[in-house]
Amino acid sequence: MRKVAVIGMGHVGATVAYTLFTHGIVDELVLLDKNEKKSTAEYNDLRDTLARNNYYVDVEANNWDELKDTDIIVTSFGDIAATVKTGDRFGEFDINAANAKEVGQKIKDSGFKGILINISNPCDAISTILQETTGLSKKQVFGTGTFLDTARMQRIVAEELDEDPRNVQGFVLGEHGASQFTAWSTVSVNGKKATELFDEEKLEELSAQPNKNSMKVAFGKGYTSYAVATCAVRLVQAVFSNARLFAPTSVYLPEVETYIGYPAIIGQDGVEKVIKLELTEQEEKQLHDSADIIKKHIAQLK
Amino acid sequence: MRKVAVIGMGHVGATVAYTLFTHGIVDELVLLDKNEKKSTAEYNDLRDTLARNNYYVDVEANNWDELKDTDIIVTSFGDIAATVKTGDRFGEFDINAANAKEVGQKIKDSGFKGILINISNPCDAISTILQETTGLSKKQVFGTGTFLDTARMQRIVAEELDEDPRNVQGFVLGEHGASQFTAWSTVSVNGKKATELFDEEKLEELSAQPNKNSMKVAFGKGYTSYAVATCAVRLVQAVFSNARLFAPTSVYLPEVETYIGYPAIIGQDGVEKVIKLELTEQEEKQLHDSADIIKKHIAQLK
Amino acid sequence: MRKVAVIGMGHVGATVAYTLFTHGIVDELVLLDKNEKKSTAEYNDLRDTLARNNYYVDVEANNWDELKDTDIIVTSFGDIAATVKTGDRFGEFDINAANAKEVGQKIKDSGFKGILINISNPCDAISTILQETTGLSKKQVFGTGTFLDTARMQRIVAEELDEDPRNVQGFVLGEHGASQFTAWSTVSVNGKKATELFDEEKLEELSAQPNKNSMKVAFGKGYTSYAVATCAVRLVQAVFSNARLFAPTSVYLPEVETYIGYPAIIGQDGVEKVIKLELTEQEEKQLHDSADIIKKHIAQLK
Amino acid sequence: MRKVAVIGMGHVGATVAYTLFTHGIVDELVLLDKNEKKSTAEYNDLRDTLARNNYYVDVEANNWDELKDTDIIVTSFGDIAATVKTGDRFGEFDINAANAKEVGQKIKDSGFKGILINISNPCDAISTILQETTGLSKKQVFGTGTFLDTARMQRIVAEELDEDPRNVQGFVLGEHGASQFTAWSTVSVNGKKATELFDEEKLEELSAQPNKNSMKVAFGKGYTSYAVATCAVRLVQAVFSNARLFAPTSVYLPEVETYIGYPAIIGQDGVEKVIKLELTEQEEKQLHDSADIIKKHIAQLK
Repeated sequence: MRKVAVIGMGHVGATVAYTLFTHGIVDELVLLDKNEKKSTAEYNDLRDTLARNNYYVDVEANNWDELKDTDIIVTSFGDIAATVKTGDRFGEFDINAANAKEVGQKIKDSGFKGILINISNPCDAISTILQETTGLSKKQVFGTGTFLDTARMQRIVAEELDEDPRNVQGFVLGEHGASQFTAWSTVSVNGKKATELFDEEKLEELSAQPNKNSMKVAFGKGYTSYAVATCAVRLVQAVFSNARLFAPTSVYLPEVETYIGYPAIIGQDGVEKVIKLELTEQEEKQLHDSADIIKKHIAQLK
Repeated sequence: MRKVAVIGMGHVGATVAYTLFTHGIVDELVLLDKNEKKSTAEYNDLRDTLARNNYYVDVEANNWDELKDTDIIVTSFGDIAATVKTGDRFGEFDINAANAKEVGQKIKDSGFKGILINISNPCDAISTILQETTGLSKKQVFGTGTFLDTARMQRIVAEELDEDPRNVQGFVLGEHGASQFTAWSTVSVNGKKATELFDEEKLEELSAQPNKNSMKVAFGKGYTSYAVATCAVRLVQAVFSNARLFAPTSVYLPEVETYIGYPAIIGQDGVEKVIKLELTEQEEKQLHDSADIIKKHIAQLK
Repeated sequence: MRKVAVIGMGHVGATVAYTLFTHGIVDELVLLDKNEKKSTAEYNDLRDTLARNNYYVDVEANNWDELKDTDIIVTSFGDIAATVKTGDRFGEFDINAANAKEVGQKIKDSGFKGILINISNPCDAISTILQETTGLSKKQVFGTGTFLDTARMQRIVAEELDEDPRNVQGFVLGEHGASQFTAWSTVSVNGKKATELFDEEKLEELSAQPNKNSMKVAFGKGYTSYAVATCAVRLVQAVFSNARLFAPTSVYLPEVETYIGYPAIIGQDGVEKVIKLELTEQEEKQLHDSADIIKKHIAQLK
Repeated sequence: MRKVAVIGMGHVGATVAYTLFTHGIVDELVLLDKNEKKSTAEYNDLRDTLARNNYYVDVEANNWDELKDTDIIVTSFGDIAATVKTGDRFGEFDINAANAKEVGQKIKDSGFKGILINISNPCDAISTILQETTGLSKKQVFGTGTFLDTARMQRIVAEELDEDPRNVQGFVLGEHGASQFTAWSTVSVNGKKATELFDEEKLEELSAQPNKNSMKVAFGKGYTSYAVATCAVRLVQAVFSNARLFAPTSVYLPEVETYIGYPAIIGQDGVEKVIKLELTEQEEKQLHDSADIIKKHIAQLK
């Protein structure tokens, strides 16, 4: 049986839970939040859905002991208000770092042996803290990272060309935050290179869009939820089915010594391997610069 | 191609849109809200989801002209804060009645010829106003009504007996609000009558639970969304596939001269027919009392 | 991770596998058949589907050792030609009884500890043999039995009234074969009793239809596959999610001392419990007569 | 409402119908076959499934008048026995050409205005005949062609590298038959070119595999069904949702003056456009040679 726990019942965590629930992706679903009133409310809303759902799902709330035999944990705690206020995901770093340490310890204490997928922001830094505090291996812990920004890039490029976003290949790399960048050398649309489809100026403009778009959504509805939840759910599915999904996620990249958005193969053991890209010199520099920003923030915390 | 418009981009409307989108139930999805910032934000969040979705869906926002050839409209505008504040769905009646008239006129002006499924509260009264202002027939307009409360009753009864809520048959009737009641003479679990499974006192206690539960969720997360959205989506599917789904929804019941939660057959024409139940004398009284409350509210408005 | 093995790669078994595969219900799928050419061909056809499937599924073939950690086995071996020839499912009893003993022994040898859902015909008799030879408990082994005939009855009654078959409640009981019968006292449509909707003569006519229909399909396409496969898949889902699905399946009924089509609650332990119905005297007699036929056949074999 | 007709109720056509049915992709499904016994049997098997299906679908059989307002026709008539016997899809050309003319005329007479997706073999030649006889435009008619062979290539390459087939990009081009070829210049795995992953000899070996595999399946189970049906269903979905799916299908390619497997964008109008690939000189030659074979066969027929 497939068992998932979602820690953090804000809009993102609740949407992850709802998506897993309505698609029958899990058999058991555990809802956890520091604020038990929220997890209880979501528990009740989902239980009220059971009679109209195509799948039975055993939903539970507030019992951290359930983590012991959980297969996958999704962490989605956060203080989006702080991000919306500052316009930068590091706006909620201090509070989430504290959350991560507390949650990480609880996960460790539970005896959890599965895979942890982190959404909490700033994603790369929080993934780092969660890996360290849980004592899980770097394979077992990864973040949604630029899997989401890549989806946003695919959409933006697709809209330019009136295409299905799924026809767009390639990656946004680096921090899930302001220093991220689209590695245009990896991007193609229906087999045509992006560098041939757009001029330099256009590429620069398009590269800035994914992060801008995310803030636009956050300012408009107070948070973002659907795109990121769907990304997390795809990763959950990849782990359960050992899909070896090729996806840019927040993984530990030895060459830059930090968690950062970079393509990896996701399977039942979590990060099966990182896939080394042949980037241009400029892209390599952007990647290292982005890594430096992530590391600087983590260092400041400690 | 299947085309749905959702009017009202609060948590409920957005969840309806997201559910239709991630399950591939629609080909075209139109998001509308008086506050275009909200519909634009949800539009962007869904568009950002496209690259990770199993289905392509053409999402649009803010264009009321799209209603012209829309198959189904779901109305989900509202001011849940007013309901949470008063603990009664009539708390948001004045504001929603005004909304309904405005929205109804826009729907009428668009030349819309399809089916309208109303979620906005107080559901029975707002369904009435929408039917009148749109000029659509009573078959074409119905509300989620006690389809949701029935799901809550199924869950409550199932939990008492450790069963799947889908094993519970029967109906909550009347107002989607405080005067609703479970018609226990219609309820059975795995073929056993509820009146044999529970004593009088227990039945009374259980009958009050669905509405209490809804307020518990609303107080806990500030609104309710998943159960009601899933109910609306089931009704959308029933219309598209002409399923002739047997469901207690808010329909016009001639015998009590108002929209009220009562079982009907839902198909491609909307309310194909109302199914007359053989209720007990007491249940008939409860139904009429509930109808009186709905009608009194509507009368006060005018 | 969810792991299912299908034993018997005829049309039914292959359709069960395909359905589990395309709906993402399983993570691992093991295809087994005495005739390895068939299981290899289905393995290859499914592997060729992976690039177009919404889910990754790890498909394997011909390795009986995989049964050791399989969660659910579906048995679907058979010789439908013999049934089509004789017009009676006992036409393939001798050959399938031999198959069941061989397959049962292999399952036992593998150390399998999960749930066995039997489709092979004659379903009640083969379920009996499989339970005995595998050494699994009577809770762990059950058959699709009249879950299929009930679906056929629901369809037939629905067609009479122009309804969705899902609006029809009630059961076909007894042998998954010629002596089955619809227990009309349990049947209702949208809350109305079948005994009030149809006269005696009509009920008798309708009662004979499910089994006739099955033969009509079998004569027309040489076998039946979709309805029975879908029934099996629903049962698989009920076990994985511990749904406690209320379904008439082929279960061991102590009062008649045999496996026979009768309502039970299906969950993660298989048959969680049998639900005792209050049948009419005539229905009780029909049930016992049907049980006698099943037992007589089993006795003749031994 | 989404309406699909499937013409040809062999294993492939029946599987297409079953897949559309169980995934809720259609609202109306029309089953047609020269041999009405077969379409009636499949009709009955699907109707018997309704009570266990998550979706209501209106299934009809044998009424060719239904084509008039059908959105999409899938043609899947054929004589696979002739292909299995000769090991070449042109083995069933004569009989299918006659079928195509008869079916094409019926489609024309019905007033059908939608999209026709052809599976019948030899796919490119039969698509040609169907386009001509129906009088539909070349945009409205296309075949599954090498969309299937490409899936097979993706699987083969993925197995070499222990990857998810969905991580493999690129195309099999040309005839859906013996003269097809993998255009290795278009193939990449996780961003790495196939020409760097495999040596010349290996590529040649792999290129021959898709067609070999198909015959292996056909010899093993007497036909192939799951992979091809799933391909057809993906194309149906792309048309309904106007997905503008980038897929190698059997489309009319002006430069070689025939229907042939080549990438196109599939949307609500059918073939929205053909996407010109930059092939190597050798690949261009292979494409032209393959086109010549298709054209020669068509010419011999006339």
